[in-house]
Amino acid sequence: MIEIAANNPTLKSWVVVPEDSDFPIQNLPFGIFERKRHKSAGVAIGEMVLDLADLQSHGFLDDTGLPDKVFEKETLNAFLALGRKTGRRVRNKISELLREGNAALKNHHNINSLLIPQQEVKMCMPVRVGDYTDFYSSEQHAYNVGCMFRDPDNALLPNWKHIPVGYHGRTSSVIASGVPIRRPKGQQRPDDNKPPVFGPCKLLDFELEMAFITCGENPLGESISTEKAEDYIFGMVLLNDWSARDIQKWEYVPLGPFLAKNFASSVSPWVVTMDALEPFRISGPQQNPKVLPYLEYGGKKHFDINLEAAIKPEGSEEKAVTNSNFKYMYWNMAQQLAHHTVNGCNIKTGDLYGSGTISGSEPGQFGSMLEISWKGTKPVPMPDGSERKFILDGDTVIMRGYAEKSGVRVGFGEVSTKVLPAL
Amino acid sequence: MIEIAANNPTLKSWVVVPEDSDFPIQNLPFGIFERKRHKSAGVAIGEMVLDLADLQSHGFLDDTGLPDKVFEKETLNAFLALGRKTGRRVRNKISELLREGNAALKNHHNINSLLIPQQEVKMCMPVRVGDYTDFYSSEQHAYNVGCMFRDPDNALLPNWKHIPVGYHGRTSSVIASGVPIRRPKGQQRPDDNKPPVFGPCKLLDFELEMAFITCGENPLGESISTEKAEDYIFGMVLLNDWSARDIQKWEYVPLGPFLAKNFASSVSPWVVTMDALEPFRISGPQQNPKVLPYLEYGGKKHFDINLEAAIKPEGSEEKAVTNSNFKYMYWNMAQQLAHHTVNGCNIKTGDLYGSGTISGSEPGQFGSMLEISWKGTKPVPMPDGSERKFILDGDTVIMRGYAEKSGVRVGFGEVSTKVLPAL
Repeated sequence: MIEIAANNPTLKSWVVVPEDSDFPIQNLPFGIFERKRHKSAGVAIGEMVLDLADLQSHGFLDDTGLPDKVFEKETLNAFLALGRKTGRRVRNKISELLREGNAALKNHHNINSLLIPQQEVKMCMPVRVGDYTDFYSSEQHAYNVGCMFRDPDNALLPNWKHIPVGYHGRTSSVIASGVPIRRPKGQQRPDDNKPPVFGPCKLLDFELEMAFITCGENPLGESISTEKAEDYIFGMVLLNDWSARDIQKWEYVPLGPFLAKNFASSVSPWVVTMDALEPFRISGPQQNPKVLPYLEYGGKKHFDINLEAAIKPEGSEEKAVTNSNFKYMYWNMAQQLAHHTVNGCNIKTGDLYGSGTISGSEPGQFGSMLEISWKGTKPVPMPDGSERKFILDGDTVIMRGYAEKSGVRVGFGEVSTKVLPAL
Repeated sequence: MIEIAANNPTLKSWVVVPEDSDFPIQNLPFGIFERKRHKSAGVAIGEMVLDLADLQSHGFLDDTGLPDKVFEKETLNAFLALGRKTGRRVRNKISELLREGNAALKNHHNINSLLIPQQEVKMCMPVRVGDYTDFYSSEQHAYNVGCMFRDPDNALLPNWKHIPVGYHGRTSSVIASGVPIRRPKGQQRPDDNKPPVFGPCKLLDFELEMAFITCGENPLGESISTEKAEDYIFGMVLLNDWSARDIQKWEYVPLGPFLAKNFASSVSPWVVTMDALEPFRISGPQQNPKVLPYLEYGGKKHFDINLEAAIKPEGSEEKAVTNSNFKYMYWNMAQQLAHHTVNGCNIKTGDLYGSGTISGSEPGQFGSMLEISWKGTKPVPMPDGSERKFILDGDTVIMRGYAEKSGVRVGFGEVSTKVLPAL
């Protein structure tokens, strides 16, 4: 067992970290940045990014047992494949190097190329996603959707409290924050008595989610228990699982969402490690009915992470339209992964596993415009005098998230995506 | 336009090609083989495999414009990324080299290392699959399933004749022929009035499918028309989309199949090029109601390919349990790809797109045990005296496919998978 020394709340860095920064020395998330057309792995500290490829080449990581040039890559996959223990060792080492009083890195003659302002780099997809699965694990969200489309008295389907329901998504269209998307076109059937029509989606929506990224593999045919699951979870990002509600309604029976989802899924670029999130564990809701033995778990496996989604109309200021929290999950990540692999399905390093839309029990905590505007019946006023039922062309949707405890804030930065008109 | 010279039905090879071989000189499918713990790309001819990495290194492909060492890879992705025209040029060149009367390769001093018996190599996954989509495009199959689980009078769902319905599958568990699978475990709810139970799947099934593999990419946000779609389709394989019917029934509402499918999907190792399949084009069924304009197409876009599935119980001989044909597809591949991208979803080289179970209109042509045994009500007698409603432990399921015209047979070899007991 390697101690998570980097989590000590009294630590301070010699790098300036503004108050309310998402990236104090207790965070140290990993990402891929691009600068002068060259990609490299980095760690965020305050408003800077530490170039890990350079850091390793200068010998600063020699005692962490890393293979050569593991950070000179276009993705974090090679590093993540080394597992959580190696990740912890590297994060502890970086914490040591950035700590107040340690001059080794601070006074290095190349410090100005090692430590770069975040505003001078472009953040990229942190991993090459092997497979992307999206769960549906917030009870309030499932209940809201059930109320709107089925029946408030039977809003949850019979399997929902027995199974962490999930489905496979598309990896090719998983994109990093900052990449704009086009409004999707597709078939819709607004009138059940007329044939379907084709055109740009009219009910474009965001879904406020978080996602975990895996490290390591299980052999095909073998399962991962809830007890072992966290060994395979490296860290987390914010996820905007874009949804076209009108396309979804017409296509999704019987095989699930397809074109309504696969035009884009946006993620925040910094992978916040599960180690950094360790202080924010909390107990989950009581699960009733009792789950089957393979889904039972011990300890605190839920996390208290504040979430926000905001809409910024073109040329106007943004408005927060919801404040939710990752703690509103019914099923936790260990249960999701145990369920996913109980049939022998194999996971790989770099897989992305979305939580599903996360809604709290109050209207101000709902995680999608479908719920916030209650199917368009409750428009949301915007600062520029317009209103929103769903997302309009020119809107930028911004999601943010952070955990806070003992004066330490561990944040995710943001995932920000502008919607361009359909082609 | 490069002529498909390699398709000339009068061509013969100096390599011995047994009668009824799937791999005459008119086929020349591409695959990845392993020999002495080393992987390389190869082409099948008769009972031999031609080592393409070696062929290129000896200069035989110099006038095809290939990048260096494009075949010294663990997958065909780098080669496929060069597109259909390059593929055609290379296939034409290989045809020339293998043609009766051409001694250049035949008399080469290294011919015995260039041309290796197939029985001395292990065939591997031909591509690194980026995304795997499975369609549901055989009308008879959709009708059969609708009859069994819903209502014979409304067997097809309202969207079925408007949309090539599809869903995303799991890529990590796509495996090559020869890799055994474990019977999956999971939740089932055999009695609707009792809680779900956990255990090995009792209704394990195959699905007789074909799949196409893409080359090239479209930018995210842009679509591919039915007219352009075939430029992005490099070739085809056989696909056994393994299914756990009891797990599927309990989990699939509302987000579609998940653990019922993602434990394994098996593919045949040789990618038969669309060029080699060119002579086997036929017209598709009339589509009524009329499809939306983006799904309209011209010309012959269906293919006449005979398909067979057989079960071989442990220690016994095999029995063919169905004979179907790829021509029974309602939606063709161009329509599938146009639909998949109409919302701006991007495809990549090496993606796998399954047809869905292919069933003909007669019981002897159904593509799954669910249909063949009609939900277990019509057991199939086996040569060893046992019977099959679904697939048992120890069974090997073998699928084969070939097209035939003008005395030329272009085949796929087989995808053969043994089922091991649950762990």
